[in-house]
Amino acid sequence: MSISIPRGTQDILPGEVEKWQLIEKNARELCEKFQYKEIRTPIFEQTELFTRSVGDTTDIVQKEMYTFEDRGGRSLTLRPEGTAGVVRSFVEQKMFGYANQPIKLYYMGQMFRYERPQAGRFRQFVQFGVEALGSADPAIDAEVISLAFSLYQKMGLKKLKLVINSLGDKESRTAHREALINHFKPSIGEFCGDCQNRLEKNPLRILDCKKDRDHELMKSAPSILEFLNDDSRAYFEKVQSYLTALEIPFEVDSNLVRGLDYYNHTAFEIMSDAEGFGAITTLCGGGRYNGLVEEVGGPETPGIGFGLSIERFIAALAAENIELPLNEGIDVYLVGLGEAAQDYTVGLLHKLRKAGFSAERDYLDRKIKAQFKAADRLNAKYVAILGEDELKANKINVKSLASGEQVEYSLDEFIDKFKSSFE
Amino acid sequence: MSISIPRGTQDILPGEVEKWQLIEKNARELCEKFQYKEIRTPIFEQTELFTRSVGDTTDIVQKEMYTFEDRGGRSLTLRPEGTAGVVRSFVEQKMFGYANQPIKLYYMGQMFRYERPQAGRFRQFVQFGVEALGSADPAIDAEVISLAFSLYQKMGLKKLKLVINSLGDKESRTAHREALINHFKPSIGEFCGDCQNRLEKNPLRILDCKKDRDHELMKSAPSILEFLNDDSRAYFEKVQSYLTALEIPFEVDSNLVRGLDYYNHTAFEIMSDAEGFGAITTLCGGGRYNGLVEEVGGPETPGIGFGLSIERFIAALAAENIELPLNEGIDVYLVGLGEAAQDYTVGLLHKLRKAGFSAERDYLDRKIKAQFKAADRLNAKYVAILGEDELKANKINVKSLASGEQVEYSLDEFIDKFKSSFE
Repeated sequence: MSISIPRGTQDILPGEVEKWQLIEKNARELCEKFQYKEIRTPIFEQTELFTRSVGDTTDIVQKEMYTFEDRGGRSLTLRPEGTAGVVRSFVEQKMFGYANQPIKLYYMGQMFRYERPQAGRFRQFVQFGVEALGSADPAIDAEVISLAFSLYQKMGLKKLKLVINSLGDKESRTAHREALINHFKPSIGEFCGDCQNRLEKNPLRILDCKKDRDHELMKSAPSILEFLNDDSRAYFEKVQSYLTALEIPFEVDSNLVRGLDYYNHTAFEIMSDAEGFGAITTLCGGGRYNGLVEEVGGPETPGIGFGLSIERFIAALAAENIELPLNEGIDVYLVGLGEAAQDYTVGLLHKLRKAGFSAERDYLDRKIKAQFKAADRLNAKYVAILGEDELKANKINVKSLASGEQVEYSLDEFIDKFKSSFE
Repeated sequence: MSISIPRGTQDILPGEVEKWQLIEKNARELCEKFQYKEIRTPIFEQTELFTRSVGDTTDIVQKEMYTFEDRGGRSLTLRPEGTAGVVRSFVEQKMFGYANQPIKLYYMGQMFRYERPQAGRFRQFVQFGVEALGSADPAIDAEVISLAFSLYQKMGLKKLKLVINSLGDKESRTAHREALINHFKPSIGEFCGDCQNRLEKNPLRILDCKKDRDHELMKSAPSILEFLNDDSRAYFEKVQSYLTALEIPFEVDSNLVRGLDYYNHTAFEIMSDAEGFGAITTLCGGGRYNGLVEEVGGPETPGIGFGLSIERFIAALAAENIELPLNEGIDVYLVGLGEAAQDYTVGLLHKLRKAGFSAERDYLDRKIKAQFKAADRLNAKYVAILGEDELKANKINVKSLASGEQVEYSLDEFIDKFKSSFE
């Protein structure tokens, strides 16, 4: 009996994986230009890290984490998002003391959430994200947003919508929080159990509830923007002016809250409004999280970042019918005829590859016709043919599959001459 | 209170991560030339996959797996090695029916084993590996070995030792198995409990025991090579002749068994014999596993592959004192003086990056001296200086940090002209 893949996960196979590779390559190159450096943190962390940072009233912590005990009895959790691990590492490695500030990092890797599997949602998914720690300059908010936006643009996406909001500083949030409690409290019985719990703990979460989103009190809820104090308002205006300078169009939406507890000041989402993209249109989400470093045990440090899913990125490319430049085909296919020639091609193939060619030969003892067919399937540019007669005469025949032209080389000079003809 | 990283795992930070990136880049390029395509399988699989494929008498399955139940009550295990997931995918995706055969795949990713943490051993480690499924041609055994060997060579390693062995086909193994049982049975009481269990289940495993490796019966144990039948012997000789053709030096060691149950015919390890590399010298291990595809529920299919740890790769590079070409420094640091000029650099920086430069500016509202220091620390090739006066005059000053030479550009033409001077 065969064993199937775990529910809600997927294999990424040749033919598809090249899209992942291309997005990742572009992301890495962009990070190089923007001076974000890669960090790799473990796939699992101590469970407490996520309850503290993501927040224990969030859906992620309450319902979606893969938590287990290791053989030593420690509670570990597969990371549901990327920021917590990076911040834990920032504190543990004392990066706040590095000479180069701010610390600008990126990560790329698998994240895990136990959600109901549905189109576009997987229990294991890949996120690319950046974190800039140590600067409270609104220019870095704009930089972070522009990095994500540039990546989508570089891959050819056009139907992009950037939505931003400010969640304000602590003072602004406290004032807004009280207004929210006053707004929802009288009718809280009409809301779901989760929202009833959230009312005192974290009323902002109510605005993000999927069950109650059509309740009439949602629309009339007090907007955070009305409660921003002068500093928070000035900060938000500066972010907007920088986005304008970067020529990145945006909308302000005061309902944008994000599903994690740690945000303040700038929050943003990049969405696709391509037709037929379906219900889930958010491609990328992020925001500022001044205070999170302290929450995880470090000194007071401002921070901002985003995370984006490669799966949704690829879905957005498909929704806009963008063809990626993939599958170029191989340089040479080596056809060998007869045992001695076939044996000889083993060493020759290796030399071709060492000389920089992508090259292939037959490994199924196939006849000449089937070998040519294999060369065709691999979209080979050239086929090099070595039979017993050629081997004895120290020659090899090379045929261009595009032009049909044939050239005979001496076996000893073959690779050098072929290489110079190729360039 | 701060939260620490899980025991036995590590953060890979900027300054170190570039080594990982370089090895992975070279591995990917080599796979492209050798025509191995990437596959990505999930981080966890159904537990049964590993008990069936890795083998339930192995240390890995008995002691080292991270096994847990998900919220739906399914038993999942973080992958302890890469082959099982690839073979599971090969069967589930019916790759045995693809037109292009053999199927040549590679993977790169985190693996997990609950081992006692020690130098060079981590509970989460990164493996690069390849699998060639569908060919029983000894030439592909040589190709797989040569791919691993070429990667080490490409990164500059010189002190490499390739050890190969044949575990034979089923008939040879059965004959050897009986001889092993007869050899150990009379004195099995002197061996550890694990070995006593292994005697009937899988006596070959005894040869791999770490506790009993100094027992006198180990040295005198019957060698598999004495039990190879004609086919197995001919196969092994062919592999050796191909390795010779590829100019890869090797030794035959009949005690090479490998820690997994699924191997037959060719088994191999690549070791470092660099001085001071320490006790763990195996860099890469692999072998043929005809039969494994059936074990996982697919049709009879030959296969061969290897896995290698990037952590040990990096340790071997250090043991040979190989300096990698890393940390080139950035192209331009933008120094802004005064609020209007600082604001202007936000857009200018973005344009520089879009034009292909790695570029940076200040995000801490620093004075000019501190900004120049930051440019130095980032090893900037050029510093571009924009003050209030320059901004008014629509000019910018660019200084080469190597030559000290200064050039003034008109702000409008700056990027175009700078770009052509740079090329």
